[in-house]
Amino acid sequence: AMAAERGLAMATCTAPVNIAVIKYWGKRDTDLILPINSSLSVTLHQDQLKTTTTAAASRDFTEDRLWLNGKEADVGHPRVQACLREVRRLARKRRGGGEDTATLSLSYKIHIASENNFPTAAGLASSAAGYACLVSALARLYGLEEELSEVARRGSGSACRSMFGGFVQWQRGERPDGTDSLALQVAPETHWPELRVLVLVVSGEKKPVGSTAGMQTSVETSPLLKHRAEAVVPERLAQMLRHIQERDFEGFGQLAMRDSNQFHATCLDTFPPIFYLTDLSRQIIALAHRYNAHHGHTKVAYTFDAGPNAVIFTLADTVAEFVEVVRRSFPPATNGDQFVRGLPVGSAALSQELVAAVVTEPVPGAVQYILHTKPGPGPQLVDDPSQHLLGADGLP
Amino acid sequence: AMAAERGLAMATCTAPVNIAVIKYWGKRDTDLILPINSSLSVTLHQDQLKTTTTAAASRDFTEDRLWLNGKEADVGHPRVQACLREVRRLARKRRGGGEDTATLSLSYKIHIASENNFPTAAGLASSAAGYACLVSALARLYGLEEELSEVARRGSGSACRSMFGGFVQWQRGERPDGTDSLALQVAPETHWPELRVLVLVVSGEKKPVGSTAGMQTSVETSPLLKHRAEAVVPERLAQMLRHIQERDFEGFGQLAMRDSNQFHATCLDTFPPIFYLTDLSRQIIALAHRYNAHHGHTKVAYTFDAGPNAVIFTLADTVAEFVEVVRRSFPPATNGDQFVRGLPVGSAALSQELVAAVVTEPVPGAVQYILHTKPGPGPQLVDDPSQHLLGADGLP
Repeated sequence: AMAAERGLAMATCTAPVNIAVIKYWGKRDTDLILPINSSLSVTLHQDQLKTTTTAAASRDFTEDRLWLNGKEADVGHPRVQACLREVRRLARKRRGGGEDTATLSLSYKIHIASENNFPTAAGLASSAAGYACLVSALARLYGLEEELSEVARRGSGSACRSMFGGFVQWQRGERPDGTDSLALQVAPETHWPELRVLVLVVSGEKKPVGSTAGMQTSVETSPLLKHRAEAVVPERLAQMLRHIQERDFEGFGQLAMRDSNQFHATCLDTFPPIFYLTDLSRQIIALAHRYNAHHGHTKVAYTFDAGPNAVIFTLADTVAEFVEVVRRSFPPATNGDQFVRGLPVGSAALSQELVAAVVTEPVPGAVQYILHTKPGPGPQLVDDPSQHLLGADGLP
Repeated sequence: AMAAERGLAMATCTAPVNIAVIKYWGKRDTDLILPINSSLSVTLHQDQLKTTTTAAASRDFTEDRLWLNGKEADVGHPRVQACLREVRRLARKRRGGGEDTATLSLSYKIHIASENNFPTAAGLASSAAGYACLVSALARLYGLEEELSEVARRGSGSACRSMFGGFVQWQRGERPDGTDSLALQVAPETHWPELRVLVLVVSGEKKPVGSTAGMQTSVETSPLLKHRAEAVVPERLAQMLRHIQERDFEGFGQLAMRDSNQFHATCLDTFPPIFYLTDLSRQIIALAHRYNAHHGHTKVAYTFDAGPNAVIFTLADTVAEFVEVVRRSFPPATNGDQFVRGLPVGSAALSQELVAAVVTEPVPGAVQYILHTKPGPGPQLVDDPSQHLLGADGLP
């Protein structure tokens, strides 16, 4: 299918977004992207959020080129180049040095096209899916079959976790060369069938400090981040693994919220301080706590990354009610047609007690829409050639 | 003057507010109010912010009574009672057990009236000034002359720091009975004549979590607070003492900002999280950093307590310019007549470069007014009997 003898080889993959429940923040090596602490994430289903990437190689290409969401971008970006270089290095190593004529020449130039099926502006960790997808497509192109999370990590730290489905740990590793700083699947996406994810996409937020610059400032200035990485995370990671193994939503949700809060605390302890949480985030956090308090246990858990959107974990039987609570608390600005997207959500009647206890001071228009999704698989090969993002001419 | 033989003895004192630059957050003993870490504050001048308290005792009073800002309040409040009990205990001890007829009878009932010269609703640490003033007035009434910060601490932890002027350390102490958990003046108010304080009183903020409840939740749930108290504060306290001794505004301001941020970080690490900083706080913080960046060094430093108002430290030669920057960034809602209060502020013309670099996206009406003040002395006796808050009948 990807025969080099035709002169044009092409492979297309999709890859997922992931949301950390034990957060990654801070590199001990900025070049190799080695983290100061291990982290743990949930891979989200690609039916709702995915990146698609086509990688092509041809003896006729005169230069490497890259298109992101249809627009040509800088293929010379050091992280793109790091991924390209590492994949080629592994391919070369595999072939034992000799150039096998039956396989694709490693000297051919590359064309890459990548697209998200979700708005990039929504700040939904698109770089994790993007680099996982780039590495997956390149690996297919060169016929690599090994585990490549170490390569994806070189594109974007959290991208290594998008190389697997379900529940994924990124172990910090100990070696200076980063060869043991890898992602590992701790449970497949089928492990916890009731688990659901609601992404509350919020409106009108300005771009915060980028996470690369932000985490480096944190490493340099926050005494609390150092303590978190050394003393807090190792224990939390072990706890979180247990909660996932036991499908203990109470434990999982409580710890996810605490870890999200602690990550944002270390941002605030950074100098100058970094704020990713806004008054709206605070309102969503307070809403989740009121909702859980009303029910007397943890029915929903929030987590916030280095961006404005709230990600809510919950179980299938809670989705309809909580979505209605969000709709009442943040009434849609328009008629609400597109307010709930993704997996179907049933309707729920709220009791007067629930509304009185939970829905205080509605803020119209603050939440743009809710995306309903669930854990999903890792990167996928797209078999259908009509799905390639590049044509037979190697152009989008 | 306070002769018991007349049957009505009366004493009036004033006491100051203080603003911590190394923050107190968390008690190791909630009954004795013993902190988990030492703290350090600046006492603000009473010309701008003060509490006045009159304490009276009479054989004719039938019950203890308390008036706060003209309204009768609960004299049975445990903290008021703790202060009363401790002052009487010390007075009894001083008299060696025997009731001296020349001194006020300790069995007389007490009337207390207390008033602030600033809006209580403004959230300006009125309990620190209030309890310091209560203890000072009671001490005068009973003729006590010893250091009473340990008693004021029993009313409100930070009140012990309002027992001195200038720069004051509250040492955590080691003893379980709290007898070494005392305030100490580290430098008088005359030590740093150029130091100025701008309180940005903000509008329309809801009451946050009370600090007593909030700090207890933090002690119970925040791993970062524990690390802060044990590992971070001891070093910072020593640094801050040096900066004050050397009148090093760069060091003082940087550390004050870092410590304020870290305190709020531990609030966010609390579960459920506590937010005292709002989007407006964040705008003020960003403004201060832009202003310092424009000047290339630390000209202003912010600190936020468990409430919405921003306190800015600066030097006299910066006041006029920074006040104008605040006025441009948060244009007064009305005609601005009362926008600047307290010490006089000169006018300043801002360069175009400064405005362009610092004044981004003005938020009209967000800052209600600016109070200009400076470090000041500790509690004062009010000699003029016409200033008593209670009449000859012992009533307000």
